[in-house]
Amino acid sequence: MQRLNFDVDVVDVDWGAGVDPAVLRGKLQADYNHEIKAVCVVHNETATGVTNDLAELRSVIDACRHPALLLVDGVSSIGALDFRMDEWKIDVALTGSQKALSLPTGLGIVCASPKALEASKTAKSLRVFFDWNDYLRFYKMGTYWPYTPSSQLLYGLRAALDLIFQEGLDNVIERHSRLGHATRLAVEAWGLKNCTQHPKWVSNTVTAVLVPAHIDSTQIVRQAWKKYNLSLGLGLNKVAGKVFRIGHLGHLNELQLLGALAGVEMVLKDVGYPVKLGSGVAAASAYLMQSTPLIKSRM
Amino acid sequence: MQRLNFDVDVVDVDWGAGVDPAVLRGKLQADYNHEIKAVCVVHNETATGVTNDLAELRSVIDACRHPALLLVDGVSSIGALDFRMDEWKIDVALTGSQKALSLPTGLGIVCASPKALEASKTAKSLRVFFDWNDYLRFYKMGTYWPYTPSSQLLYGLRAALDLIFQEGLDNVIERHSRLGHATRLAVEAWGLKNCTQHPKWVSNTVTAVLVPAHIDSTQIVRQAWKKYNLSLGLGLNKVAGKVFRIGHLGHLNELQLLGALAGVEMVLKDVGYPVKLGSGVAAASAYLMQSTPLIKSRM
Amino acid sequence: MQRLNFDVDVVDVDWGAGVDPAVLRGKLQADYNHEIKAVCVVHNETATGVTNDLAELRSVIDACRHPALLLVDGVSSIGALDFRMDEWKIDVALTGSQKALSLPTGLGIVCASPKALEASKTAKSLRVFFDWNDYLRFYKMGTYWPYTPSSQLLYGLRAALDLIFQEGLDNVIERHSRLGHATRLAVEAWGLKNCTQHPKWVSNTVTAVLVPAHIDSTQIVRQAWKKYNLSLGLGLNKVAGKVFRIGHLGHLNELQLLGALAGVEMVLKDVGYPVKLGSGVAAASAYLMQSTPLIKSRM
Amino acid sequence: MQRLNFDVDVVDVDWGAGVDPAVLRGKLQADYNHEIKAVCVVHNETATGVTNDLAELRSVIDACRHPALLLVDGVSSIGALDFRMDEWKIDVALTGSQKALSLPTGLGIVCASPKALEASKTAKSLRVFFDWNDYLRFYKMGTYWPYTPSSQLLYGLRAALDLIFQEGLDNVIERHSRLGHATRLAVEAWGLKNCTQHPKWVSNTVTAVLVPAHIDSTQIVRQAWKKYNLSLGLGLNKVAGKVFRIGHLGHLNELQLLGALAGVEMVLKDVGYPVKLGSGVAAASAYLMQSTPLIKSRM
Repeated sequence: MQRLNFDVDVVDVDWGAGVDPAVLRGKLQADYNHEIKAVCVVHNETATGVTNDLAELRSVIDACRHPALLLVDGVSSIGALDFRMDEWKIDVALTGSQKALSLPTGLGIVCASPKALEASKTAKSLRVFFDWNDYLRFYKMGTYWPYTPSSQLLYGLRAALDLIFQEGLDNVIERHSRLGHATRLAVEAWGLKNCTQHPKWVSNTVTAVLVPAHIDSTQIVRQAWKKYNLSLGLGLNKVAGKVFRIGHLGHLNELQLLGALAGVEMVLKDVGYPVKLGSGVAAASAYLMQSTPLIKSRM
Repeated sequence: MQRLNFDVDVVDVDWGAGVDPAVLRGKLQADYNHEIKAVCVVHNETATGVTNDLAELRSVIDACRHPALLLVDGVSSIGALDFRMDEWKIDVALTGSQKALSLPTGLGIVCASPKALEASKTAKSLRVFFDWNDYLRFYKMGTYWPYTPSSQLLYGLRAALDLIFQEGLDNVIERHSRLGHATRLAVEAWGLKNCTQHPKWVSNTVTAVLVPAHIDSTQIVRQAWKKYNLSLGLGLNKVAGKVFRIGHLGHLNELQLLGALAGVEMVLKDVGYPVKLGSGVAAASAYLMQSTPLIKSRM
Repeated sequence: MQRLNFDVDVVDVDWGAGVDPAVLRGKLQADYNHEIKAVCVVHNETATGVTNDLAELRSVIDACRHPALLLVDGVSSIGALDFRMDEWKIDVALTGSQKALSLPTGLGIVCASPKALEASKTAKSLRVFFDWNDYLRFYKMGTYWPYTPSSQLLYGLRAALDLIFQEGLDNVIERHSRLGHATRLAVEAWGLKNCTQHPKWVSNTVTAVLVPAHIDSTQIVRQAWKKYNLSLGLGLNKVAGKVFRIGHLGHLNELQLLGALAGVEMVLKDVGYPVKLGSGVAAASAYLMQSTPLIKSRM
Repeated sequence: MQRLNFDVDVVDVDWGAGVDPAVLRGKLQADYNHEIKAVCVVHNETATGVTNDLAELRSVIDACRHPALLLVDGVSSIGALDFRMDEWKIDVALTGSQKALSLPTGLGIVCASPKALEASKTAKSLRVFFDWNDYLRFYKMGTYWPYTPSSQLLYGLRAALDLIFQEGLDNVIERHSRLGHATRLAVEAWGLKNCTQHPKWVSNTVTAVLVPAHIDSTQIVRQAWKKYNLSLGLGLNKVAGKVFRIGHLGHLNELQLLGALAGVEMVLKDVGYPVKLGSGVAAASAYLMQSTPLIKSRM
């Protein structure tokens, strides 16, 4: 493979843990010559259900007075979790159409700060289709694109944003918080553990559930699909066989989640885990009953 | 209003009861001159969740050797409940696109026996658009219609039937039986009564639930919609305020039903009925876990 | 058949002719006792391409000081031709979703004047599903319907009206006028006659073209469909075999019409009529070039 | 920019000309050490309407006994023009969903020969998302993908292929030949020249038309869009302002093309070019009338 002409210092963490600000601080403080050009971080880690605290990471960079760009993978967060491009001085944020926007796969959406745009002018990475500058040049001419765009997905994006604005972005984020919390209460009621190692990192868009050692989580996912038409997420890589994941983002409401939780209960019992049917649904319902608002616009 | 040029002898029954075969037998036996031209019956009564036993009614007509036509309203039954046009010698059966076929509203579907077609030749009822004979005449010319048809719904009908045939009509009926039974178990777990007065009449496509006297079922339906985006059916006419209805027909699976049942539990508690959250879901789940088959075609 | 409890005095006209105001005047003037309850007229006759002059018929009724209701079939006119419910004091107007609104078949749209609503209260015609009063009663409760509505078509209607309002209803009518005129110029260039007997009746939504006696218009329609995927209208009833029809209403633009006209030219030649290819298109184009406006909103 | 770790020898040709086999032969014969790893060629050049003769280029490579891979950009050809992966021993062929397949933009479709797959194993180009081997590895597991696929476009692809197979691929290619030929006859009738420099290179999917020096082709494209809602292609790069392009590929029939040609005639006249209205349509129609088959499956 051709080498990237820059070094990447990957900081591994335990699967289930988030970014440690102390490690970031150490690296930046040791970088006297500002050779670190960018800090790259995933806002919400889909495989383990870990949400990193971007505000805290931003404050670390600021405290170190380090000029590195802050690049954020917001694929499973933007449009569902609290995300503040300007306030947190994110330099590049990325998301996709198929997560919180509830659209088909196909659009990558990128937002870049003036600082990032400036940096891209001298960047030497190999790029053609994904070169921002071609897009910026065409945008100035009106609704033009350097390459044939997916008009259908752009119309879909318009509709997806309308849905979000109609509900209110704050309400959307609050709804994801509600659904995430309800899911964690169900997991607790089942006597199972969240893959996320500390409450400060819990994710409101996906919950990775650890299964007891004698159960293969792959079997849970397969049974859920084949018997109940329920799509759970597989455990990936280091947690393969050890976790299954419940996604709860996008155009999803309380009863759809409760239906999924009821399905998980049956599957758990099907594979031999001694869950009390209805226990997770009851725990989630008790919370949702209190927290779900009336939608006044419904007649 | 213009008078119909025939008499209609409406046989009322209690709301929640089905057709009494003895009454039918009495009427037919008393009709020495065969002035009764048709017996009209609703297969599944949507307002009360009552399914009539068509086979039994057929056998009554046969036993009386009465030549009356048997006309069946199968709107909320055909494609979901066991229905046998030929075996039960139904003369006219009617259904709509928007029930078991899961299509948008818009198509009325009618099936007539040779005996009914013959009778229609001398029938004197006023009709233009709905005159079978115009349709039959055009069908003979190929794919033609006397009036502009709704092509989209006809394509939709093709797709809806493909879904049913793919699942297997017997499996579709079995699934509705499963969903109906699960719903009734939940109602029982909540300590509530089914509007249907006898188990022999319970409906597998809709369950009408009686609420305690101090609760207005309209409030339940409104709260379900405004808070949980859940469409329950209102009590109609004689049972207005006294029942709410849970529909469970068409393209619906186990987890969608369980989500709806979880919603009903929260709504019941919201309006002050002392339901134990999770109790109905648990009762339904325990049964569904045992009875839901693996779908082998899912990979 | 059951008799209607009112008499219908059908005034036949030649196929290709419109309503003769003198005949209407005569009938109304002779009706001293005002036994005529309603004047029923088709605004645009689809089979022959005849548009009646509703304003003139209204003035005849007014001049006679006759209280009859004016009921209009506007199926192939409303939304495409100039139609003025209030100014022409139309009492009942009817149209369908599948013509000028460019929607699928399925909605009947009716508009009634206060006078018509009043009359309906004492009307004795047999009706259930189509009884206005049930609809009016439910409308007052909010967005409710006495029967299950076709939500999809109602959303479609909203979108269809948005398209019309965006173009501007006056522009829509002007566009139909342009397309109708262009079609008639093409027919003239082909050396063929319009079925409409007088220019005052020509229709801007459909043109019925008379074919020479030795040609069967059915063959033209069939060839157009089988060879060029072009849907022409058959001659119906009295003009079967003698005319074919070119529809030009709804969501249709100049180039789509020119494509259709080019197709008709080829078909005419295919069936042995000695048309000069391109002649109709040239005549229509020369006119359209002058009359088609720039759409300023297109970038 | 990061350097590609291989050299690219771009062989320029006049805009409007195709690949010269002699040049290819010269380069390959001079390459004693087989340092040329791949011959890259565009099958159909969209900007100029030039179709290269892949069979001839293949025979040149074979005659030279050169082992270079043959990589083909078939974006505006595959599914519309004659293309023979196996017979012409193409090693890699690429196309997109938005051309001959008539789908929305979004799918890139690649087909690789065993020789290309083998070569990719040692290829050093930088790649992640587009690495074939990840896809091949997942395909072996069933219907799996290494990254989230666009399910909608895959269903669309299935439908698009069904349409092609239903018409018959040979008939599809024949239809494009018919539409291309008709377009060229119209251009000739207008007294204009094809940008393609020699008949052997004419394209059946797009025709680039040279305009007289005193006319700016950009004005033609703009007028076509703003007045007639007709999307012509701009002249790009070296032929900007000098050509406009008529696309004629995908789900397109004879009458749609004739409508577009009628539009071009009006636009040409609008911008001051002295075209005889109907002339191009007549020339195209005369040919299409003779060559268009009856579709027997249409009733």
